[in-house]
Amino acid sequence: MIETVDLITDTRNRREKLREMMRLDGADACLIASNLHIFYLTGSIFAGVVYLHCDGTERFFVRRPVGMTGSQIRYIRKPEQIPDLLEQDGLPLPKVVWLEGDELSYGEWARLSQVIPGTRCVQASARLRTLRSVKTTYEQAQLIESGRRHALAYQKIPSFYRPGITDEAWTIELEREMRLNGCLGLFRIAGQSMEAFMGSTLTGDNAGAPSPYDFALGGAGMHPSLPIGQNGTVLKPGQTIMFDMGGNFTGYMTDMSRVFAIGHVPSEALRAHQVSMEIHQALSESGKPGKSGEALYDLAMDMVSAAGLSDYFMGLSQKARFVGHGVGLVVNELPVLGAKSRDVLEEGMCIAVEPKFVLPSIGAVGPEDTYIVRSWGMERITPGNQEIVVI
Amino acid sequence: MIETVDLITDTRNRREKLREMMRLDGADACLIASNLHIFYLTGSIFAGVVYLHCDGTERFFVRRPVGMTGSQIRYIRKPEQIPDLLEQDGLPLPKVVWLEGDELSYGEWARLSQVIPGTRCVQASARLRTLRSVKTTYEQAQLIESGRRHALAYQKIPSFYRPGITDEAWTIELEREMRLNGCLGLFRIAGQSMEAFMGSTLTGDNAGAPSPYDFALGGAGMHPSLPIGQNGTVLKPGQTIMFDMGGNFTGYMTDMSRVFAIGHVPSEALRAHQVSMEIHQALSESGKPGKSGEALYDLAMDMVSAAGLSDYFMGLSQKARFVGHGVGLVVNELPVLGAKSRDVLEEGMCIAVEPKFVLPSIGAVGPEDTYIVRSWGMERITPGNQEIVVI
Repeated sequence: MIETVDLITDTRNRREKLREMMRLDGADACLIASNLHIFYLTGSIFAGVVYLHCDGTERFFVRRPVGMTGSQIRYIRKPEQIPDLLEQDGLPLPKVVWLEGDELSYGEWARLSQVIPGTRCVQASARLRTLRSVKTTYEQAQLIESGRRHALAYQKIPSFYRPGITDEAWTIELEREMRLNGCLGLFRIAGQSMEAFMGSTLTGDNAGAPSPYDFALGGAGMHPSLPIGQNGTVLKPGQTIMFDMGGNFTGYMTDMSRVFAIGHVPSEALRAHQVSMEIHQALSESGKPGKSGEALYDLAMDMVSAAGLSDYFMGLSQKARFVGHGVGLVVNELPVLGAKSRDVLEEGMCIAVEPKFVLPSIGAVGPEDTYIVRSWGMERITPGNQEIVVI
Repeated sequence: MIETVDLITDTRNRREKLREMMRLDGADACLIASNLHIFYLTGSIFAGVVYLHCDGTERFFVRRPVGMTGSQIRYIRKPEQIPDLLEQDGLPLPKVVWLEGDELSYGEWARLSQVIPGTRCVQASARLRTLRSVKTTYEQAQLIESGRRHALAYQKIPSFYRPGITDEAWTIELEREMRLNGCLGLFRIAGQSMEAFMGSTLTGDNAGAPSPYDFALGGAGMHPSLPIGQNGTVLKPGQTIMFDMGGNFTGYMTDMSRVFAIGHVPSEALRAHQVSMEIHQALSESGKPGKSGEALYDLAMDMVSAAGLSDYFMGLSQKARFVGHGVGLVVNELPVLGAKSRDVLEEGMCIAVEPKFVLPSIGAVGPEDTYIVRSWGMERITPGNQEIVVI
């Protein structure tokens, strides 16, 4: 039985955890200005700066929207007003300040780092990523709800098939179904190593097309400005199609892939899919607190190797060197289950596992599911059958 | 008659124009690493770095995808290899280097600025924004095609109405229609001052809800993690609904809003919409090369004031201080038609004009259209009737 707290209490706890990290690290305060972390720390998005001092004081400096109320809120026109406002409230100016070096642009960092005179600024994005990697019970509940609705929308996938349909047309119907189920649509990604609309769909030879992005698989995409996923291929009997959409139903994103076969597909594809399901089983049993991301990756690689399927695993000419990744407010969180990953599993982490194979001229196989790390292993939160569904 | 060149020639011309700016500015070379500008300068997206020297030499340093070919292409594992690769090709190391301070994170800038020893790095994002603001004939053709398909999809809007429908359900049907017409879906925005899925729809009181983002209007959105646009309001007779979607059909985004009335709406709403259309007419006539963004904004504000509608213009409790903005690869380009904007119109700029009003308890009115600046004024590229359509 998970005890959940309300969002206000939960975000207060998150801010307190961040302060704890600051104290251990010798930082006095942080200035948080990314939409991502403002939402994470306050439960709202505003244009402005969250200021947390390790002594427990905090201010939310807001430029927009008008009308926010709360004892921490101070309206500003520009961040340069912050030191005056702190002094007006009798608060000390910090000496060592955490800033978000990965979320702020160079220009934003350069400006914000000058706001409080005489401070030393520390790039703290890695700390924030670590903090976010372990989900609170409130966050877990959001992820579980996203997973439930994500899986519900996927149940309709077969009903959209008609002979001669393209991967793109089929995907559009699934997008609509997801949206009607409450998906917010926005596919949030940290950094620019990836871009996507709502997800990616792969069939046939396009499944092996290399992409510039850091997704597990590629696909040429519909246009050179967005080279990922479906490319307008007409579905053909004997081929598979893999749907891989971001499940942003609650602000928190689950990740889930399911594979469908148009009629009879070669047994090699069915076997590879079976190996993928076995990897899911093995990883969900081994994925306990204390296990490293590398160990889980190696376990998957060993199973692939034993099955003689290494050539097809995680791409053809270009291979991803991970089999899973954290998810949450964005689709690329910690931990990474990948080669040389030193990330260590903790209870409450949320991880998408995607051991996938690309079979030349057939398509991609292997389910993707999202899990929460428990004391006893990984609990799947994207419910439903993992098998290939024949259409 | 517009003479268009092919993409390869066009991107070569863009790179040459950038070199010209570099020479004038005393920069030796640039290192371009954002997806946005890599696409702008090469016509492809790859993970890596575009290196342009003002002497005309260039290299595309690629990490991913595999398989790219071309005389400028050199594969790298990490950007630190760049100086060695330049030296291997007998190329001089630059002393003054342009970097993208607004597109790169602080972390990316910090790393890339150390790659070539002894260089001075200059924040060149403003220059790149200026370069991108004037569209080549190739780019104009892409925008015209986006506008054509954008308008085509909007024609279907009335057919999705049924009594009792919500703004969200209606929007989902339009999203699908846009996608079936070839919209790539992705709504590209520079920076984090805005986030959106495919656009925003406003009806009733939600039209006046202030947003943290820098859009013309707000709306509470469907969830606190994405506070913009429709919020699930059921359409009611006597109210308006405004659809405002990003038209990314070609990598280049047009911007277009259309207003529909459920039955009879108060004459104040019709009059405000009429004033908006008159502003469009006036701005499209006055919007010639040499005109400033501020002058066009002031012209619009004067017309609003003369009509006695200032209280409703560009929001209620929170007002945007612009009536138009450049569009292109992203939805927030130069020029800005806004208060104190020093941007000056040039032939080939592409501008979305959106003089909008919010009528309390009715909704938002005022069309938005995208224009290209010609010698004689602004040519509208989102075709079709601007009037309110009564449903």
